[in-house]
Amino acid sequence: MILPSTQNRLLFLRRILSASRPAPSSASVRAFRPPLARSYTSMAAAEFGTPAGGGVAPKLLFRQLFEKESSTYTYLLADVGHPDRPALLIDPVDRTVDRDLSLTKDLGLKLIYALNTHCHADHVTGTGLIKASYTLLALYVANIFFTKMPTVKSIISKESGAKADLFVEAGDRVYIGNLFLEVRATPGHTVGCVTYVTGDERDQPQPRMAFTGDALLIRGCGRTDFQGGSSSQLYHSVHSQIFTLPKDTLLYPAHDYKGFTVTTVEEETTCNPRLSKDEGTFTNIMENLNLPYPKMIDVAVPANMVCGLQDPPLSAI
Amino acid sequence: MILPSTQNRLLFLRRILSASRPAPSSASVRAFRPPLARSYTSMAAAEFGTPAGGGVAPKLLFRQLFEKESSTYTYLLADVGHPDRPALLIDPVDRTVDRDLSLTKDLGLKLIYALNTHCHADHVTGTGLIKASYTLLALYVANIFFTKMPTVKSIISKESGAKADLFVEAGDRVYIGNLFLEVRATPGHTVGCVTYVTGDERDQPQPRMAFTGDALLIRGCGRTDFQGGSSSQLYHSVHSQIFTLPKDTLLYPAHDYKGFTVTTVEEETTCNPRLSKDEGTFTNIMENLNLPYPKMIDVAVPANMVCGLQDPPLSAI
Repeated sequence: MILPSTQNRLLFLRRILSASRPAPSSASVRAFRPPLARSYTSMAAAEFGTPAGGGVAPKLLFRQLFEKESSTYTYLLADVGHPDRPALLIDPVDRTVDRDLSLTKDLGLKLIYALNTHCHADHVTGTGLIKASYTLLALYVANIFFTKMPTVKSIISKESGAKADLFVEAGDRVYIGNLFLEVRATPGHTVGCVTYVTGDERDQPQPRMAFTGDALLIRGCGRTDFQGGSSSQLYHSVHSQIFTLPKDTLLYPAHDYKGFTVTTVEEETTCNPRLSKDEGTFTNIMENLNLPYPKMIDVAVPANMVCGLQDPPLSAI
Repeated sequence: MILPSTQNRLLFLRRILSASRPAPSSASVRAFRPPLARSYTSMAAAEFGTPAGGGVAPKLLFRQLFEKESSTYTYLLADVGHPDRPALLIDPVDRTVDRDLSLTKDLGLKLIYALNTHCHADHVTGTGLIKASYTLLALYVANIFFTKMPTVKSIISKESGAKADLFVEAGDRVYIGNLFLEVRATPGHTVGCVTYVTGDERDQPQPRMAFTGDALLIRGCGRTDFQGGSSSQLYHSVHSQIFTLPKDTLLYPAHDYKGFTVTTVEEETTCNPRLSKDEGTFTNIMENLNLPYPKMIDVAVPANMVCGLQDPPLSAI
């Protein structure tokens, strides 16, 4: 079956979805399980996905993907030890959705989640397009085989205020097969920023990996002068939630502008020219950056509040 | 000590290096050791570097670095299990030399080699600037402490025809501490293309990693219509030297234009739209690409024949 590009599929989808179709509650699909005792947080823990796998050892497939115009990194993670090969995408970008879905197809993965670390101001998330693309595929298949195709659930933090299928809080776990990401609250760049961290159990990847969004960039950090940002809060977020991870933890940011792809806790605690300083020096640096008004913010933030889709009928997908 | 940028250091170096300084033989520093029996090649094996390390287990530090304008990847590898933390750079770019040297300094590495996979036509190698920068530093330190600083040796294949300190051939090994790269001849994009592959011994990284230059790109390959290229030769190079590696081998190309960072042997044998085909189909595709004349070739190739430095006095560094 040859499908048109995602943008064209979206236009097609707009036509076939009638306005009479009821919008499901965005929070109704959240699956809670009993809280797990974890030392790093006293907050309630919830788990998404299906951690069962018949005793199959988890095996991480990991891909870092770059969007050149906004210098954004998207991350693909999958448990290829699990028979379903379930996968998730962190911080997908609208203009590279076709590339990302093509890659998941090439690798035989079952995409189940599209996560955002926060409500971005510098690019439009691909979450909505991914969901729309999968919904269209489900409709095609349902027409032919009368069966329901898997859909992708969007995830963002509750504090972001943005729409999504599932809202995470600190202490939650997002499962793909037998692999999981812990959610850590790292506000300061925006109020709803979270960092997703691979688990610290024996069968989880070593060294650990943290997807920091804009809270921590390689030798830098996100600005703190918009979207409820606070330099003091960012300082405490990074120091309490990221710098306390094992020093060999691999840190993957949402952006890089100099061609770096990864760093570590050890490296940033010593070499980050902002966050390795004391709090007073840090807040002073952040208050004197004199950055220009972000060129994408007026487009990106409203779009990202609704999964990247600005057309109201599609926000119901 | 605050040093000016690499470009400025280079200008300074040009002034202090007198024309009367004799040029050392570019091949005089090659260190041969007895050939090792290896099943994958019958060619003579030579080894560079110092594989001894007092029984210390090798531990790979690996960084992928991107140069946006030419979409080039540079790779930093180091043995951080070795007391000296020796490192090498594969395919450095002239415009990002400062970034790369700053990173090696941040990580406390001792850069000993700068390798090229081939004589590039789309960007100028940073090898010469790196060597010049280290030579200048050695001169500074020699002035102050009367001691000799370590220098960096450039490496390229013998068949490339380009200048370098050491010339590798298929079957050679390049050591950093107790880690090593095997050299595989993969001509076809250019006559002198080689692929550097991490070793297959128990203490070497798993899965293996191959730095393919332009022989194999993610879902593509380098063009074959310049610099002695041959599509038939490229097909045989990739199929005999890269696709015969374990299927989980991580493949790191010299470029990517779509934001991909890595692939595997398994992925390219099935998904590469050119190289997964039979030889006839492949050569037919390559002969009908109708690509424009490369915009950088007239600058890059002459520069890269002399380590990226076009000024004759510096070719002697």
